[in-house]
Amino acid sequence: MSVAFPKIAILGSGAIGLYYGTRLALAGAEVRFLLRSDLAAVQEHGITVRVGDQTLRIPPERVGAYGSAAEIGPVDLVVVALKTTANDQLATLLPPLLGRQTAILTLQNGLGADELLATLFGAERILGGLCFIACNRVAPGEVVCFHPGSMTLGEFGRPAGDRIRALAAQLKQAGVTCSVVDNFREARWRKLVWNVPFNGLTLTTGLTTDRLLADPHLASEVRALMEEVAAGARAQNMDIPEAFLQELLDLTPALGAYKPSSLLDWLAGREVEVEAIWGEPLRRARATGAHTPRLALLYALLRQQAAEAGRR
Amino acid sequence: MSVAFPKIAILGSGAIGLYYGTRLALAGAEVRFLLRSDLAAVQEHGITVRVGDQTLRIPPERVGAYGSAAEIGPVDLVVVALKTTANDQLATLLPPLLGRQTAILTLQNGLGADELLATLFGAERILGGLCFIACNRVAPGEVVCFHPGSMTLGEFGRPAGDRIRALAAQLKQAGVTCSVVDNFREARWRKLVWNVPFNGLTLTTGLTTDRLLADPHLASEVRALMEEVAAGARAQNMDIPEAFLQELLDLTPALGAYKPSSLLDWLAGREVEVEAIWGEPLRRARATGAHTPRLALLYALLRQQAAEAGRR
Repeated sequence: MSVAFPKIAILGSGAIGLYYGTRLALAGAEVRFLLRSDLAAVQEHGITVRVGDQTLRIPPERVGAYGSAAEIGPVDLVVVALKTTANDQLATLLPPLLGRQTAILTLQNGLGADELLATLFGAERILGGLCFIACNRVAPGEVVCFHPGSMTLGEFGRPAGDRIRALAAQLKQAGVTCSVVDNFREARWRKLVWNVPFNGLTLTTGLTTDRLLADPHLASEVRALMEEVAAGARAQNMDIPEAFLQELLDLTPALGAYKPSSLLDWLAGREVEVEAIWGEPLRRARATGAHTPRLALLYALLRQQAAEAGRR
Repeated sequence: MSVAFPKIAILGSGAIGLYYGTRLALAGAEVRFLLRSDLAAVQEHGITVRVGDQTLRIPPERVGAYGSAAEIGPVDLVVVALKTTANDQLATLLPPLLGRQTAILTLQNGLGADELLATLFGAERILGGLCFIACNRVAPGEVVCFHPGSMTLGEFGRPAGDRIRALAAQLKQAGVTCSVVDNFREARWRKLVWNVPFNGLTLTTGLTTDRLLADPHLASEVRALMEEVAAGARAQNMDIPEAFLQELLDLTPALGAYKPSSLLDWLAGREVEVEAIWGEPLRRARATGAHTPRLALLYALLRQQAAEAGRR
């Protein structure tokens, strides 16, 4: 089986890194996972991903489990699946993994990772992927995926070309529903139109998305926050139609008693990606003169909530 | 000792009702407290108010402690010191207390009580008092006052006249620092300029006022919320100068690790006056076209927080 990126390093052993890494490995790539606290467990038990009634397994004798980037060495593709709160480690983690042609795909939330990676390692290497997926790491090396969803892929600061289409083909072959967009920055902001209100207000209130929308005052604030994010994107010349906001609102009830990733992080005692999801969008919206008062208040509240718990 | 209002009923046996009722009683008025759960305790022990190293006492043999408005009967002045969340009781509590000339003084927070009382019992009876005081009911019939502060008095919907000045004189004689204003509605909104941000954000965050102001993002939201309340007031033709906002900000650090009344209510498991302090100001600001996005978000969050705890 010939693939575009035969040798892949996965940074981050949370649900996202394990899920996509396992799929890519089972579809023929040589996948090397960089692990820290989970290293011994994965070496002993391998990786298990449950999707519906299907179980994907990399047995221990075949798992590429590494304790350092130096041991992994240069690869064709680095998949960055760390939390954005760990991005200060990227400058030291990545260099041993990079050959001359190595591409870097960040699957991280919110804003800022693309630019940081571009600054550190050159804009031409950088690809982005937005993961619309519901999955959870339930133990070291073990993931449960409730809804495999899809991934939106794009090049950083450039329209789509052969490289990103080849990656999409490889991911499709691995069982990932993919689409490729020319304007990846706009796709990031479109995702924020949902994440900013729903991740934010479920985090401040502790409510699931269905209960948030059942409260008419909070539902109205969800919509108003969507408008502010859209205004921020439009002020930067991105196209976010009004109808798109309504589509997002209309599809949310079908998620049921859904806990967005930030609420799951909070409830599990993990760090919350406050700067990537709220701080950086707010700063960019403000820099272009967009009026985002609710986002400003929400950011201040979330920042304090996370800081108070030592999780920012 | 001759006083303008010789016979006074006090509704509400929290800190405010006990504090001012005791002062008025000790200065010569016949004060009748309407009590519910605290009735037996007050009949047995009387009322004790500690202010600094001074103790004000109404001994049990002299305390006017009543279990129903009918037993109290008509008085010269009814002081309404209930939480606004209990205002649905006013329509049944007050009628037995009202003679032809009886005035009604509401000492309640926020907006709405004046108009409700005016609708129920006639606008000409209604007086308002804003209490700038730090006091706490520590047990039935027992109050500790940390800072006696002052009271701002006014007539409802009319400039000050002889009646309110006579009441102010009686309160001064009783040891209460008082001032009388012609535009009481504006005084209510000026108090909200402080209460909306500080009561609101200390409630959502659990922080004291000093810690709120130590966070530059939250401090900036305090200021922005002040601006929105001022905009709401100005849209209704009230005069709230910019310098007034800065004065309020400048005097807050001196309060130290202060817990506003709503935070105290929340921490003590009591109901929070969400509609009076945030809901009604928001509705009135919106009705006049003022732009108050942060107030809308804060109200939705506080409403949900209180509702979730069954305390609204």
